[in-house]
Amino acid sequence: MASSFESDITGRTEVPDVVVSRLPQYVRTLSQMLAEGVQIANSQQLGEKLQITPAQIRKDLSYFGRFGKQGRGYRVDHLLEELKQILGLTVTWNVAVVGVGRLGRAILNYPGFTPDGFQLVAALDDNPGVVGQEVGGLMVRPVSHLAEVIDSYQVSIAIVAVPIAYTQAVVDRLVDCGIRAILNYAPIMPQVPEGVSVRSIDPLLSLQSMTYYLVNGLSPEKEL
Amino acid sequence: MASSFESDITGRTEVPDVVVSRLPQYVRTLSQMLAEGVQIANSQQLGEKLQITPAQIRKDLSYFGRFGKQGRGYRVDHLLEELKQILGLTVTWNVAVVGVGRLGRAILNYPGFTPDGFQLVAALDDNPGVVGQEVGGLMVRPVSHLAEVIDSYQVSIAIVAVPIAYTQAVVDRLVDCGIRAILNYAPIMPQVPEGVSVRSIDPLLSLQSMTYYLVNGLSPEKEL
Repeated sequence: MASSFESDITGRTEVPDVVVSRLPQYVRTLSQMLAEGVQIANSQQLGEKLQITPAQIRKDLSYFGRFGKQGRGYRVDHLLEELKQILGLTVTWNVAVVGVGRLGRAILNYPGFTPDGFQLVAALDDNPGVVGQEVGGLMVRPVSHLAEVIDSYQVSIAIVAVPIAYTQAVVDRLVDCGIRAILNYAPIMPQVPEGVSVRSIDPLLSLQSMTYYLVNGLSPEKEL
Repeated sequence: MASSFESDITGRTEVPDVVVSRLPQYVRTLSQMLAEGVQIANSQQLGEKLQITPAQIRKDLSYFGRFGKQGRGYRVDHLLEELKQILGLTVTWNVAVVGVGRLGRAILNYPGFTPDGFQLVAALDDNPGVVGQEVGGLMVRPVSHLAEVIDSYQVSIAIVAVPIAYTQAVVDRLVDCGIRAILNYAPIMPQVPEGVSVRSIDPLLSLQSMTYYLVNGLSPEKEL
């Protein structure tokens, strides 16, 4: 929970994280609509594409002010631009990948981050057999150089793809080096201090919630 | 949204998907507590480990009946067993991986699925250079054998790690073959009919919601 002090500074009602987490999906859908030449979209049309109820869409957007006129829908280009501003997606973010095993290699070779403004600028690992190799166009540096790499490449975000036994220690070091946004691939929830965001990519948790629907013969609600 | 007909059959109040999605995290935490010899836990203690409010934990569990006695906490072994039953985690699920590129290989070599009851039993790809190779102990089969593979290996769940351009077509074929739970790694939301669950693993969406906190100088609420 952000402190009320911070909410006071921004002058904004605190936005639930579940809403913040949905916004990138809005951005993706609006970008597609714009590319298809759609100029105006109402919450019904957005809801169909996003598989979210129109009421939920109106509520989510209401946290950030009034984007549409009653009964007239949203201007797609305007809403897209505003949401990108709100999410900080109008700038490029430099990202370091810590851990260059099979998963780290797949991440470093994935071409999907750059077009959306996330530039992988550094790769680090502690395995002497990996340090010095070129992976995804980057030379792997030893983790002992972390502070220097973060500083010289102006890294704001770290992707952590190290084994579970090392994850918390790596996260602690990243936090010590000033990193405030961490994408974690290990099946644990690293502990971080106030002011640092962690998201975990955990396919096992996704599988384990789908089996609920298999054994109960149900479908999930159509929501993100 | 599951139809009311289905809810009537199970006799259970429909559980929000956000609650279902949290339960695997409960299972993981309770397993750790059990391994550490903890016998009783109250919602406060669970909340600290899970970074969820105690009130939210009590509300989540209330969908499935009364697990704890007022003021006495939950029996860890009992709650764990019940949640595993509810989620369908007391049986082994056979899983097929479609797409054996860099990401598919990382998935097929990941040792973390099996101990939790998800057995990777088949790998499929359409690239003739990959079909016939052994990856993660499985011989890669052509996608044209999909129906036969699903049938003979009793596959219930599919992991789809194919390029975005092929994702919807692969998902459609899986649904035609009777698959009702799909874990998708492409950055799109595949469309599926009622009765089929899809979860997407999408690191870009996670990154794009963390930048909100970076530009606004906030932290996410401490919730899953």
